[in-house]
Amino acid sequence: MENNGKSDRELDLLRDEIDRADRELIDLLARRREVVTRIAALKTARGLPVYAPDREEVMLRARRREAAERGVHPELIEDILRRIMRDSYRAEGEHGYRRAAPEAWPVVLVGGAGGMGRLFARHFTASGHPVRILDRDDWSRADELLDGAGLVLVGVPIAVTLDVLDDLRGRLPAGAVLADITSVKVAPLARMLEIHDGPVVGLHPMFGHSAPSLAKQVFAHCPGRDAAACSWLLDQLRIWGAFPVTVEPAVHDRLMGAIQAQRHFATFVYGLHLMEEQTDLDEVLALSSPIYRLELGMIGRLFAQAPDLYADIIFGSEVGRDLARRYHRLFARMLDIYESGDRAAFLADFARVKDWLGPLADVFLAESDALLDQARDRLDIRAAGATRRRGDP
Amino acid sequence: MENNGKSDRELDLLRDEIDRADRELIDLLARRREVVTRIAALKTARGLPVYAPDREEVMLRARRREAAERGVHPELIEDILRRIMRDSYRAEGEHGYRRAAPEAWPVVLVGGAGGMGRLFARHFTASGHPVRILDRDDWSRADELLDGAGLVLVGVPIAVTLDVLDDLRGRLPAGAVLADITSVKVAPLARMLEIHDGPVVGLHPMFGHSAPSLAKQVFAHCPGRDAAACSWLLDQLRIWGAFPVTVEPAVHDRLMGAIQAQRHFATFVYGLHLMEEQTDLDEVLALSSPIYRLELGMIGRLFAQAPDLYADIIFGSEVGRDLARRYHRLFARMLDIYESGDRAAFLADFARVKDWLGPLADVFLAESDALLDQARDRLDIRAAGATRRRGDP
Repeated sequence: MENNGKSDRELDLLRDEIDRADRELIDLLARRREVVTRIAALKTARGLPVYAPDREEVMLRARRREAAERGVHPELIEDILRRIMRDSYRAEGEHGYRRAAPEAWPVVLVGGAGGMGRLFARHFTASGHPVRILDRDDWSRADELLDGAGLVLVGVPIAVTLDVLDDLRGRLPAGAVLADITSVKVAPLARMLEIHDGPVVGLHPMFGHSAPSLAKQVFAHCPGRDAAACSWLLDQLRIWGAFPVTVEPAVHDRLMGAIQAQRHFATFVYGLHLMEEQTDLDEVLALSSPIYRLELGMIGRLFAQAPDLYADIIFGSEVGRDLARRYHRLFARMLDIYESGDRAAFLADFARVKDWLGPLADVFLAESDALLDQARDRLDIRAAGATRRRGDP
Repeated sequence: MENNGKSDRELDLLRDEIDRADRELIDLLARRREVVTRIAALKTARGLPVYAPDREEVMLRARRREAAERGVHPELIEDILRRIMRDSYRAEGEHGYRRAAPEAWPVVLVGGAGGMGRLFARHFTASGHPVRILDRDDWSRADELLDGAGLVLVGVPIAVTLDVLDDLRGRLPAGAVLADITSVKVAPLARMLEIHDGPVVGLHPMFGHSAPSLAKQVFAHCPGRDAAACSWLLDQLRIWGAFPVTVEPAVHDRLMGAIQAQRHFATFVYGLHLMEEQTDLDEVLALSSPIYRLELGMIGRLFAQAPDLYADIIFGSEVGRDLARRYHRLFARMLDIYESGDRAAFLADFARVKDWLGPLADVFLAESDALLDQARDRLDIRAAGATRRRGDP
């Protein structure tokens, strides 16, 4: 391709205009952030929740309409504003949160030295609660740490949860809320009710401790005893922007068998399979469609995290094991269809599932399309990054 | 929570300031888009590619630095600018693309009436090529349609690809480039070389026809014959912003067995499993972590798309079938570990895979974290949307 001086200069001038606009954008973001800081301070003082979904919806609808009038794609302004709001939630947290509890009771985090413990410690501290950690090596001081506590939150590996609860028996202040964040709920909740006569509530955070903030994060919530006395804790979660979703302990454990145990197990087996097939990942990555790259991402993130956590979730769920067994049998049946080339049988089953999914199939398609577009926005650096890091000695 | 008039007004005033800033943002986007339009016109005139990765990298690095200086998170400005750039690529295409071919040869799309055909038709037309569709019902006019063609691009179901190629034998202009977009490459490429003495090239778009644009889309590229005579086609793909990745046909077909056939088959089986388990999807969605929701998204998008396409990909790949068989055997072995509660064996295998993945595990974790954050940005509407649509009579 031939360039001539004149048009290069023309292009450069236009690119300078783009750069100026983008610097204006930075300026605008900085100013907007200052206003958000003032809103945050006001919300903290007023005790309003960080996340105001109604206000958000109204605001987004208005901006979409105005954008369309100006010839700007409504999807573009919505995506950008949602991205800015995520940043704002984080900023709001930096200035503290309102305390939902009537008093600044001490909060004891049992097993609080881990990642999830740090996340809770940070949030309770930012809400004005003194936080005390009762981890493995602190049991000699347990009575002292538990003295006067308003909340005792147990977050220890599944395998030792019941034992740790037994160790707490007879040591908890009568009015303290006893709560846990174990990833199963039936057994821990029953044991909590057994060892403590006061308010009891079961929680299960549906996210990892690497979460950037609690805004828009889901907690499973299983009421135990004295919901009124536990309500400040639920309010506090909402103030942090989280969604507690109430569910029966037995339903929770059944669902988690599918959502966590079985899926993590299948992902684990798939990672092992890639290794046993001696898959050349660089080769695969070069040709990956965004969707497959996302699937590799799911596998990679499992193996990048704590093996014990996954072992806990998988081996702790009988439901997951039963589901995995039935999935395996179904896989065998479908493999017969694959091996015999029975395309008609495949198409018949395909139609049945499509029918069963109903309108959700299209919802999922649209959702994942949007996400794949976002994944593609960063495709170049991601590809380069993977190759570069992998190539490192 | 008690409100008093004064602070409500204070909050309202601050929110007005946010709204004003967001309207300024819309204005800025509209102005920026005008400049992009002028750049697009200049690029088309000059024949420069839409996608300029080097310029992008330099620009993003500068904006990140300036943002940090202003107290704006560098990740925030990068995410926003990447999102804006995606929009710009689309805008650039609206004003046409430079033609890479030395002449405005007619392009014949064999099987061009489908979604992928429309995508190519739109792009070739926007690049100044007359486009002719040769679909199932047009074979009586085939000779007329093929007359003077500079490119004959075959995109028909795998099952009929070889037959369609046979039908083209002896009908192609000597100098025309013969290309295909079949999702396997060995057999079609061999047949193309057999039926045509002129330039031949195999392509496989690694994306679906719902793609918003070709910017940053990957094509597998298998050279066939006379690469020099085919080079304009590759240049044209690059002008559209796509990445052709060159690969041996046999390697391509092996990789696609893993990337497409086996994975689609596993996803298909998992969808069937969810149905057979009579999974209550509303219940599951309410409690889903973003990662599981993403997995549901993968399943939903498969069943929302053309069953024949998936049947083609799955049944067309012997490699996929062999991989599925070995995956199934491995699953059985691991199920034994699950059933016997052999946690130590699980942890040992976990460590082996983690080791094998090396630094890629962390790369994948970071990537998928970023993507899950984006998924969460839209969590509320998505949940509401799914429930609403599903609840419709």
